[in-house]
Amino acid sequence: MLAKGPSVNREAAKIVRKICEDPAKYNVLVERGPLGAIIIDAGINAKGGYLAGRLITEICLGGLGKATLSSMCIGNIEVPSITVYTDYPSISTLGSQMAGWRIKIGDAIAMGSGPARALALKPKSVYEKIGYRDDSPEAILVLETSKVPSAESIQAIAENCHISPENLSIILTPTSSIAGLTQISGRIVETGMYRLVELGLEPNTVLYAWGRAPIPPAHKNDIESMGRSNDAILYGGVTYYVVDCEDDEQLKNLIERAVSSASKDYGKPFSEVFRDAGQDFYKIDPQIFAPAVMTIVNRRSGRVFSAGKINTEILLKSILK
Amino acid sequence: MLAKGPSVNREAAKIVRKICEDPAKYNVLVERGPLGAIIIDAGINAKGGYLAGRLITEICLGGLGKATLSSMCIGNIEVPSITVYTDYPSISTLGSQMAGWRIKIGDAIAMGSGPARALALKPKSVYEKIGYRDDSPEAILVLETSKVPSAESIQAIAENCHISPENLSIILTPTSSIAGLTQISGRIVETGMYRLVELGLEPNTVLYAWGRAPIPPAHKNDIESMGRSNDAILYGGVTYYVVDCEDDEQLKNLIERAVSSASKDYGKPFSEVFRDAGQDFYKIDPQIFAPAVMTIVNRRSGRVFSAGKINTEILLKSILK
Amino acid sequence: MLAKGPSVNREAAKIVRKICEDPAKYNVLVERGPLGAIIIDAGINAKGGYLAGRLITEICLGGLGKATLSSMCIGNIEVPSITVYTDYPSISTLGSQMAGWRIKIGDAIAMGSGPARALALKPKSVYEKIGYRDDSPEAILVLETSKVPSAESIQAIAENCHISPENLSIILTPTSSIAGLTQISGRIVETGMYRLVELGLEPNTVLYAWGRAPIPPAHKNDIESMGRSNDAILYGGVTYYVVDCEDDEQLKNLIERAVSSASKDYGKPFSEVFRDAGQDFYKIDPQIFAPAVMTIVNRRSGRVFSAGKINTEILLKSILK
Repeated sequence: MLAKGPSVNREAAKIVRKICEDPAKYNVLVERGPLGAIIIDAGINAKGGYLAGRLITEICLGGLGKATLSSMCIGNIEVPSITVYTDYPSISTLGSQMAGWRIKIGDAIAMGSGPARALALKPKSVYEKIGYRDDSPEAILVLETSKVPSAESIQAIAENCHISPENLSIILTPTSSIAGLTQISGRIVETGMYRLVELGLEPNTVLYAWGRAPIPPAHKNDIESMGRSNDAILYGGVTYYVVDCEDDEQLKNLIERAVSSASKDYGKPFSEVFRDAGQDFYKIDPQIFAPAVMTIVNRRSGRVFSAGKINTEILLKSILK
Repeated sequence: MLAKGPSVNREAAKIVRKICEDPAKYNVLVERGPLGAIIIDAGINAKGGYLAGRLITEICLGGLGKATLSSMCIGNIEVPSITVYTDYPSISTLGSQMAGWRIKIGDAIAMGSGPARALALKPKSVYEKIGYRDDSPEAILVLETSKVPSAESIQAIAENCHISPENLSIILTPTSSIAGLTQISGRIVETGMYRLVELGLEPNTVLYAWGRAPIPPAHKNDIESMGRSNDAILYGGVTYYVVDCEDDEQLKNLIERAVSSASKDYGKPFSEVFRDAGQDFYKIDPQIFAPAVMTIVNRRSGRVFSAGKINTEILLKSILK
Repeated sequence: MLAKGPSVNREAAKIVRKICEDPAKYNVLVERGPLGAIIIDAGINAKGGYLAGRLITEICLGGLGKATLSSMCIGNIEVPSITVYTDYPSISTLGSQMAGWRIKIGDAIAMGSGPARALALKPKSVYEKIGYRDDSPEAILVLETSKVPSAESIQAIAENCHISPENLSIILTPTSSIAGLTQISGRIVETGMYRLVELGLEPNTVLYAWGRAPIPPAHKNDIESMGRSNDAILYGGVTYYVVDCEDDEQLKNLIERAVSSASKDYGKPFSEVFRDAGQDFYKIDPQIFAPAVMTIVNRRSGRVFSAGKINTEILLKSILK
């Protein structure tokens, strides 16, 4: 009965089954698609919603975190919000939730996230860094897309995961669907983890993590939806990390540079940042992709470091324009 | 495996079974009553409580919404609160949760709510408007009452639902019990839906909804309890609706008129409103029965409209007098 | 199908099984220890975490309460928090959660809490006062310790519970582990109950209870961790009790004396209080061990009494020093 290392796909599969047992409740369409893969549509031909979005967030975290919905005040307006916490920050966020797998669907590229990445090792560098890989015979992939993948795509995904296609479940969430918006805000802890690692923190020194972000109002326009989703993180997202680290000075410097306000592009709604950059993501300062508020607790020294603040003014601009 | 339309009674029945499997935990009395109907007493001879109240709220929503308890500050006092969200706003609130069925229990009338209404179609006009009816062989009814219904009442309810009495479950929650107070505050989203529809919004254009209200302090006096329950909604309730609508101007006008502060009776605790009206509900401006704060997001245009505010002063008066 | 009185061990056992079915997810080590007892390590050789801490809190409450994690602002810093509520305040807090059983583990004494106490009746005076005892064939004990108990200790615990050792489950949570810190903050309602009873309130007049406290930042130093845990309750904890009581004056007096600010030792971080008392608990004013904010609702009169406030200044000092 000793605890083994967790399997992100096996843990997530339990939540997938919960959705598949009651598709009407979760407002999703579940069917056997090309090559027998299970396709869960959570926002293309299905309506999806907050209930599905909450569970898809937990699936993205490899079943190793908890997501709950509550609310957050933005001035006089109160909007839904999502809280996530995990005791496996590097595995569940970098090793599963991160949208790190570029997948060809017809002519387009969709970003793949979720536990299947830990079988396909996409990208390999991440898995080397965190020292984790899954060995599950079953794979769960989340795709931000509005298109059902073809047999060819499914074949390629299954091969990369070293499983047969009928053991693959793919969840489809368009960016501007409610399930999509919910699971994107649910990436708040991952966004901060990614920044910390970029700035040099060893991911496995992060022991526990917690975060919260507003779920922005839905918008049919994809750029506006994307802008609001980013604003929710950059101007409204809050995170908290418990680390085990020798060097307090490193943490203190790191946190000041990690929050979104450290970026030169900070200070206007993201859709404006995007347009000012000629709609070219590569011209945007990558430092902007960070939580508004970050707190680090160093368990070894007991010290607490915090930086950033929630920017109500820009959040209001973002949702009222 | 395609998703069928949801059945509010079948979904709610799953939660009813959870309660019946552990009546001690939920502080309820479960027994086979007249004609074999299952009677769940959550506040008459049983003590009930917050745990039962939370699940009864989800039962009222036809199992198609989620309810969680947290808290809310009213000045320096912090009181429990309930948050609800649903991806089926018209079916779960108007088609199930709404107290739309007047049921004779002995000499008195009790208000019936919950999924059984969607079998009995009470009132029919609502079901025509939302285009929904359930076909479940099992019915779940929630009654705000302090009396156990007689065989005669049960026979009539079952006949109206086109089911046999032993397939009927009735949950009894007195108005001023904790379970009762919890599920009444849990009607916050429904209260706003009702107002919006009264003001001309098509219910099925509302795609997703979210809300939150304080659960007021218990009171043995029924009028005081009723007053505090109303104050929780009118002065402390917050709602958020995602709609799909062609006309932004309509939404903008609607929301201003929908919140409780649009009523001429707004501005004093509800028990005073009630007494000033000679304890005659029909003399009270029906516009007062509305959330304090309402926000509408139009998915089609991306616009967000909001009106109202939480009235701490009157909430304090309501609970401190 | 009539409701029987609840069994805290049987209810808690359901949650224990949930943990044992998925030790990897909850980051615990589960094994058959000396004499066949089940030992669940949630922070000694296992990492534990927030997910385990939340469930251990519900186990401590004898399965008769609900615990959820959200967050709380302390100035500009936002930290995780735990909310608990119960419809069996005297049984679940005094009769189970209270750390009322001193258990010899080798040369040290560990504080035992949780449902097993209701079989061993430790201390007997509490069970006489609340008129409760459990009769479960299975016992669940929570130990704040960093040592695995020996066969001798397990034999003694099992005998005290009148069960055989293989029907005993022991959960181990070191004070400064995340699971430990979480379940300690989860004692917020119990801390207030204990104070109210000390001041003369009959425990069984408390019908329902609710509370919330921050989960303080982890610290490897046990005194600092203990200090922050106490500060979370004394300066950041909020409680709410629904009682049934004849005498409003008694309640009004009681609540003013019950909150932490009524203590002469109030006003500095607890680690300072502790050091100023020469690290001798018996020299500290016991009145300090109380929630920062307490509200009592008297269901009989409808009156609401509240005292105390959250002390952000000292909470910041506590976590930033």
